[in-house]
Amino acid sequence: MSVFTPVTDADLAAWLKNYAIGRLDDLQGISAGVQNSNFFVTTSLGRYVLTLFETMPRAELPFFLHLMAHLARHGLPVPAPIANRDNEYLGTLSGKPAVLVTRLAGRSVMEPGTAHCSRIGAMLAGLHLAGMSFGRKQGNARGAEWRQDCAARVRSHLPDDERAELDAEIAFQAGFDLRRLPQGVVHADLFRDNVLWDGDFIGGVIDFYFAGVDALLFDVAVTVNDWCAGADGQLDTARVAALLAGYAEARPFTAAERAAWPAVLRAAALRFWLSRLEDFHQPRAGEMVLVKDPGEYRRILRLRVEAGGLPALPL
Amino acid sequence: MSVFTPVTDADLAAWLKNYAIGRLDDLQGISAGVQNSNFFVTTSLGRYVLTLFETMPRAELPFFLHLMAHLARHGLPVPAPIANRDNEYLGTLSGKPAVLVTRLAGRSVMEPGTAHCSRIGAMLAGLHLAGMSFGRKQGNARGAEWRQDCAARVRSHLPDDERAELDAEIAFQAGFDLRRLPQGVVHADLFRDNVLWDGDFIGGVIDFYFAGVDALLFDVAVTVNDWCAGADGQLDTARVAALLAGYAEARPFTAAERAAWPAVLRAAALRFWLSRLEDFHQPRAGEMVLVKDPGEYRRILRLRVEAGGLPALPL
Repeated sequence: MSVFTPVTDADLAAWLKNYAIGRLDDLQGISAGVQNSNFFVTTSLGRYVLTLFETMPRAELPFFLHLMAHLARHGLPVPAPIANRDNEYLGTLSGKPAVLVTRLAGRSVMEPGTAHCSRIGAMLAGLHLAGMSFGRKQGNARGAEWRQDCAARVRSHLPDDERAELDAEIAFQAGFDLRRLPQGVVHADLFRDNVLWDGDFIGGVIDFYFAGVDALLFDVAVTVNDWCAGADGQLDTARVAALLAGYAEARPFTAAERAAWPAVLRAAALRFWLSRLEDFHQPRAGEMVLVKDPGEYRRILRLRVEAGGLPALPL
Repeated sequence: MSVFTPVTDADLAAWLKNYAIGRLDDLQGISAGVQNSNFFVTTSLGRYVLTLFETMPRAELPFFLHLMAHLARHGLPVPAPIANRDNEYLGTLSGKPAVLVTRLAGRSVMEPGTAHCSRIGAMLAGLHLAGMSFGRKQGNARGAEWRQDCAARVRSHLPDDERAELDAEIAFQAGFDLRRLPQGVVHADLFRDNVLWDGDFIGGVIDFYFAGVDALLFDVAVTVNDWCAGADGQLDTARVAALLAGYAEARPFTAAERAAWPAVLRAAALRFWLSRLEDFHQPRAGEMVLVKDPGEYRRILRLRVEAGGLPALPL
């Protein structure tokens, strides 16, 4: 369940008077998402999603909301925050920072084929190109520095062999600087469950709350690690080729990116191994986290190390 | 037909490189609209409408495009202009000012019932409320001054009885100042063919190219004259009541508006009688105009004069 803070019809109806979207007709909690409370909101003038931010610092939210607005304005199917009558996106409801966004059509596809991967590559490039004209900056909250710090926090919980593996990867990544690669705004969490498909089209890319400025290639690696791997974590060559070609058609890779690809695939796997280790061993009090298996991303990391970054980035 | 300026696949594909919406997949001319050339555009990342402005001065377009963006940002289902990679809405294609907008779902309903009219009233109020925080100003190009000027241009073409009727209405309206009423951004052309219905919802309000600042009540009157009249021009009391109640729930009418209602209904009818007279008697060279029957709005004006503004605005 993902309604941690209740909202009453009466409270929401009163809050909606700050907006220009008509009268409240229906309010339904949504049982998905692990960080925020989400609701479907239907008014006389449309269908929206209401999000109450349970744990994210209010000061970090404008970056995410303005990014979503920017990408929507550039024609990409992302939830567009709704401005209230004072032209503000962020309000307060039931004591929490709250935002209304447009409701997008579609469902996740958990077993994508090459056609899906090609379109995901094109979409990721579109997000990166549109993000280049976005004026705000905020770092990737799960970037290189966080990975080092997180490893230091979790390593004492690990058995010897796993700790050695983690230490070795941290040492490898310390010799490698993602900041030398083309930078931009990355989604940083473009997993299959964050994309809604409306037939053959991408109806929506959701959950921008890990977005930040980092190496664009890091985003490609996060995406490939999820969309192009089998249940065993092995990459499917055809799907990787489709995703990378879809991406490169809009933004060709640089020579530096081609050289860095093996290391970046590993950095992207490490990031999710670490966050899952932390959720598993050190869940923070007051946070409601769906604990996912850290072993899945330990395995993916090991496979990427062994494969040496193959399949390679296209020329 | 409404493709006056051809666009080739190759030209559009090259132009789309300025955007972040992927590769061109399909381009189709649209046979609707009388002022612009319109096309459905499908890319790898979404579905859009391309408009080439055939006759409108380029300097007037930013007001309309930024208004549409503003209303979309406020959660209303209007075509949202797509920003290019330089963050601009307005470009140039085939030598014409050109814009891409989001494609909205739905079809026009030409025989609306009270439920449609209630929702249209709510939508019109939503447009007016959201418009209050819009920063740009541009007058209603078919406002009071235009009506006087247009009457002077067309009256010599009319037979005596029709000219006397027009002169009488111009004299009546000259004694009445719409600027005393609450002002704001009005759509000014919210006819049934400018609204797309997606089931019970309004999927889209289109054609903002007559929008401008004027009395909000003028917009209500334009809308009532179209949505609530039978083929004979007579108002249907139940539909009028539904539309006005839907509107007043979000923005209650003022005492000044209630007093002015009969005159404003007449002003709104006069505006369309005049434009149709001008299109009929003085079509401008080089403009492609679908000539509509001026007699329809002469009859509507006469009926509004006789009825004295009934049904009245709700308290």
